[in-house]
Amino acid sequence: MANVAFLGTGMMGSGMVEAMLRRGEAVAVWNRTESKARALEPLGAKVAASPADAVTAADRVHLMLPDDAVVDRILEQSLPRVRRDAVVIDHSTTSPRGTKARIERLQKSGVSFLHAPVFMSPQMTRDAVGLMMVSGPRQVYDAVGSVLEKMTGEVWYLGERGDLAAAYKLFGNSMLFVLTGGIADVFAMAKANGIEPADALTVFDKFPVGNFIKLRGEKMARRDFSATFELTMARKDTRLMLEAADGQPLTVLPGIAKRMDDAIASGHGKDDLGAIAAEVLR
Amino acid sequence: MANVAFLGTGMMGSGMVEAMLRRGEAVAVWNRTESKARALEPLGAKVAASPADAVTAADRVHLMLPDDAVVDRILEQSLPRVRRDAVVIDHSTTSPRGTKARIERLQKSGVSFLHAPVFMSPQMTRDAVGLMMVSGPRQVYDAVGSVLEKMTGEVWYLGERGDLAAAYKLFGNSMLFVLTGGIADVFAMAKANGIEPADALTVFDKFPVGNFIKLRGEKMARRDFSATFELTMARKDTRLMLEAADGQPLTVLPGIAKRMDDAIASGHGKDDLGAIAAEVLR
Repeated sequence: MANVAFLGTGMMGSGMVEAMLRRGEAVAVWNRTESKARALEPLGAKVAASPADAVTAADRVHLMLPDDAVVDRILEQSLPRVRRDAVVIDHSTTSPRGTKARIERLQKSGVSFLHAPVFMSPQMTRDAVGLMMVSGPRQVYDAVGSVLEKMTGEVWYLGERGDLAAAYKLFGNSMLFVLTGGIADVFAMAKANGIEPADALTVFDKFPVGNFIKLRGEKMARRDFSATFELTMARKDTRLMLEAADGQPLTVLPGIAKRMDDAIASGHGKDDLGAIAAEVLR
Repeated sequence: MANVAFLGTGMMGSGMVEAMLRRGEAVAVWNRTESKARALEPLGAKVAASPADAVTAADRVHLMLPDDAVVDRILEQSLPRVRRDAVVIDHSTTSPRGTKARIERLQKSGVSFLHAPVFMSPQMTRDAVGLMMVSGPRQVYDAVGSVLEKMTGEVWYLGERGDLAAAYKLFGNSMLFVLTGGIADVFAMAKANGIEPADALTVFDKFPVGNFIKLRGEKMARRDFSATFELTMARKDTRLMLEAADGQPLTVLPGIAKRMDDAIASGHGKDDLGAIAAEVLR
C-alpha cells in the first residue's frame, strides 16, 4: 500500500486525506495551522512536524495550498527530502504563468511533478467524486493516473502544456463566481420589488439558463455576432434591471451595462448581445 | 377562426405572427418601421396603416414593443378602437413597476389586459416553442390561456399580482446577460494565455456549472452562508483571474472582486462565497 504525504489539510485537503485513509493508504499530513492536521489523527493520519518530515517516506506527495507563493515555499522546504522515485502532485489553484514556470523548472530538476487542480466541494473530496484536470509530462501522468482517478472518479489529462489545467480551473471557477454574482443581483432586484429570494429562483426551474453557456459560448467563439438577441435591446433590458434594483447594491449588472455601451459605441448595436466579447475575440 | 392584431413586428413579433398565420389565424399587423410589417404580407398578414386600424376587428390584440413608454403610447393610440370583448396581451419586456401600474389602470378602465413576456429566441417564436409567463386577472387568463399555449407550448400563470411576470422576465434575462459577460471574461483570460476560445469552452462540457444556479441559489436564499467555498479563497482566485486576463478588458470579474472585498470588510471572509449577497438578503 502506498505511502502518501499530504501538505495542506484545509477544507479540501482534509477531505481528500479522509478518502485516502478510508482506501487504506498510509498518509503523513502537514498543515501550517497544526490543529487542522491533528483533526485527521483519529482517522489514522500521521501528523508531521514539517513539510520535509512529511515527505521523507512518501511514494506520492500531494499539495493543496492557498497560492503560488505558498506552493513554491513549501516545495523549496520539502523537495530536498522527496524521494527520487516519488511523484509530486499539486492540486492547488495557481496562476497559469506561475504553474507553467514551476512545471518546467521541476522537470529540469528531475522532479516528477503534475499540476492537478479539481472541481470539487469539500464534501465531494470526502466522497471522492468530481473532476481532476492534469497538466504535466505524459510519463508522469501515466504512472499515477489510475491512482488519481480514485480521488475523483474522473481525471482529464490536458497534456504536457503546463498552464492549461491552471487556466481551465480559473475558467470554471470564474463562471461559478459569475453565477453567484448573478444570483446576488437577482436577489437585489427581488428585494427592491418585494419578492422572496426563493420565489425569484423558481424562474430558473422553468428557464434552464445554464444551457446557454454552451449555446451562446460556441456562437461567440465562432465570432458569429448575427443577432438572436439584439445588443441594443439587451442594453434596454439592462437599464430596466438597474432601475428595478432601485438602489440595492449590484455585483455584475453595472459592469455588463458598461461593456454593452462600449460595444454599441464600437458599432455593434444591431449585432448580437454576444458582441460584448468582440474586443477580446479580435 | 380568431381575428388577431399584432402591434410590433420586430424579430420576436414577426416570428410569433408567422406561427399564427401558419395556424390559420387572420392577423392584422402594424409596425413603426413599415417594411418589417410588409415582410409578413406574402405569408398572409394584412398590413394596417396605424395601431388603431390594426385593432378594430380583433378578438385579440398582441403587443411586442421595445419598452414601457412605447407600450403606453401605442395603447393610448389604439385602445379607443379595441373592441370591448377583446383581450389585449402585451409580450413586451417592461419594468415591474410600470407594468403593475398599467395592469391596474387598464383593469379599472374595463380593458381585459395581460402582461405575458416570453423566454424565446426569434427562431423559437417561429417554432412556437418556449415559455410564456403571465400576470393579470384570473378571468382574463382563463379566457385566453389555451390560445397563448399555442404560441409557446408552455404558459406559466403567475397570478393577479401585476409586476411578477415583468420581474421574472428581468431575472431570467439578467442571468442570460451575466452568463454572456462571464463567457466574455473567460475569453479574455483565454486570449491573454494563448488559448483558443472554443478550447476554453470545453471546460463547461466537463464541469456543468449551470447546475449551481439552483444549488448555490437555494443555499443563499436560506441565508446559509456556511462555507463550502470560503470567500477569502474565492477572492484569492479572483485575483488570479484578474491577473490572468493581463490587461484584456473584463466585463463582470472586477465587479465581483469589489463585492467580495465589501463582504470581507463586513466580516464575511470565513463565510461562503454566497455571502456576497448577504447585504441584499438582509
